[in-house]
Amino acid sequence: MLVRRYSMKRLDHGGAERVVDTVAAEEPLEIRLTYWVKEAQHSQNLAVTMRTPGHDRELAAGLLVSEGIVRERSEIASLRGLGIEPSNEVAAELSRDVDFESWRVERSGFVSSSCGVCGKRSREAITSQLPDRGKDDFRVDASLIQQLPALLRERQAGFAQTGGLHAAALVNAGGEIEAVFEDIGRHNALDKLIGHALLCGGLPLREGILFLSSRSSFELVQKTAMAGAPVLATVGGPSSLAIESARDCGITLLGFVREQRFNIYAGEWRINS
Amino acid sequence: MLVRRYSMKRLDHGGAERVVDTVAAEEPLEIRLTYWVKEAQHSQNLAVTMRTPGHDRELAAGLLVSEGIVRERSEIASLRGLGIEPSNEVAAELSRDVDFESWRVERSGFVSSSCGVCGKRSREAITSQLPDRGKDDFRVDASLIQQLPALLRERQAGFAQTGGLHAAALVNAGGEIEAVFEDIGRHNALDKLIGHALLCGGLPLREGILFLSSRSSFELVQKTAMAGAPVLATVGGPSSLAIESARDCGITLLGFVREQRFNIYAGEWRINS
Repeated sequence: MLVRRYSMKRLDHGGAERVVDTVAAEEPLEIRLTYWVKEAQHSQNLAVTMRTPGHDRELAAGLLVSEGIVRERSEIASLRGLGIEPSNEVAAELSRDVDFESWRVERSGFVSSSCGVCGKRSREAITSQLPDRGKDDFRVDASLIQQLPALLRERQAGFAQTGGLHAAALVNAGGEIEAVFEDIGRHNALDKLIGHALLCGGLPLREGILFLSSRSSFELVQKTAMAGAPVLATVGGPSSLAIESARDCGITLLGFVREQRFNIYAGEWRINS
Repeated sequence: MLVRRYSMKRLDHGGAERVVDTVAAEEPLEIRLTYWVKEAQHSQNLAVTMRTPGHDRELAAGLLVSEGIVRERSEIASLRGLGIEPSNEVAAELSRDVDFESWRVERSGFVSSSCGVCGKRSREAITSQLPDRGKDDFRVDASLIQQLPALLRERQAGFAQTGGLHAAALVNAGGEIEAVFEDIGRHNALDKLIGHALLCGGLPLREGILFLSSRSSFELVQKTAMAGAPVLATVGGPSSLAIESARDCGITLLGFVREQRFNIYAGEWRINS
């Protein structure tokens, strides 16, 4: 369900022709959350996001990690699609020991009083809730990074068909791609990857390299930090706040990762050149 | 303030060098809204969005149009940056005759009961609130569309420096670019453009072609529809829901607009080939 087909008209210098084109699928996904406050169960809509259908449970789980609501598989009591498949709703139930109510109160305070005033406060908000990465001496050879574009291209089924899907890959210390997810949204692609890691019991990603086909932004660095991954590498370039937040969080940030070159914007010490 | 400079390390087959790189600026913007309910004035945070600083008033105004809160310049009583410039806060005050309270109630109902169930309902939600475009016989020559990439490239100052900024351009019926805005986010770039048109008294854009450097999505078609523009053209490809919502809304949707070719995904009748 990554792609759909539509009849359209193509104009070029040779004239016009009617062809069937393959495009990236986009549908809204509603994530409903059930949580406990003392002995009572509550429900609310956590988010509605436009995404490419498929791996919706992973997307929901990844959002819960990225937003700082859960850190471990055991904190999600259940996770299922609602309605008739393919469905555009996912229901997540948190375990009794997850204090979602405090998260909700803190977050509303954050949005109304701190966020938006300056980038520095947004950055402080991430660093204050980072998972413990333990002893952090993970290093990567530059030659491994240079091989990533070719490896990812082989695995981007949807992009090859449409040119309209972003990919997020989890690369291990040996340079092998362990998982790849594609989505019209780069944030969704990374959330699916992080959700997959959570559901496999693989968080925090202490030795994981996250490799994205997109540019990097504050939010993508935030997700990387929440997943505990030491390296974020992207085919495109970083934003200013991506660089600043990566430096704050101790994440190695690589940009413009192409066949024979890449740029190191933060955390140089991890790259053996 | 479109760009910032950072020292970084570049690795290529020739070795490593330390260089200063120019990257797209990203900062959070908080939009505070003041509105009237009967004789009482209320305030709330409408949104916090990560954006490239600059033209923040246009961004806030554009969001108000895209979200269906205002349609005319006169519905905004005031719009100003808060704090010391450059600021990351904008305050918008709605006129007394804008019924924001009803919008808020409808929207919360929309999010909790309709959106997320299926793309069709999202699409119906747009078509129900479209501005009246009046007599709609606007047509465009294919040759005008083919000139857009070269015209836009000349005006993308930030992209040329960083490779990391999206551009949104308003093109008139004569094929001239009337305004261009750049932002790390394609949605922001279009909102700035629509906000600019609102503040100039130029909405609805009955004969406007919106040309974006990005792909198209449901949300970009929604913004185009709310601005009353008949044509959305993008350098990248469309998503499935972009095509379906353009077809529902009577918008001409063009994709993969490159030097000598483009694809027509919806509203073919407007293109003279």
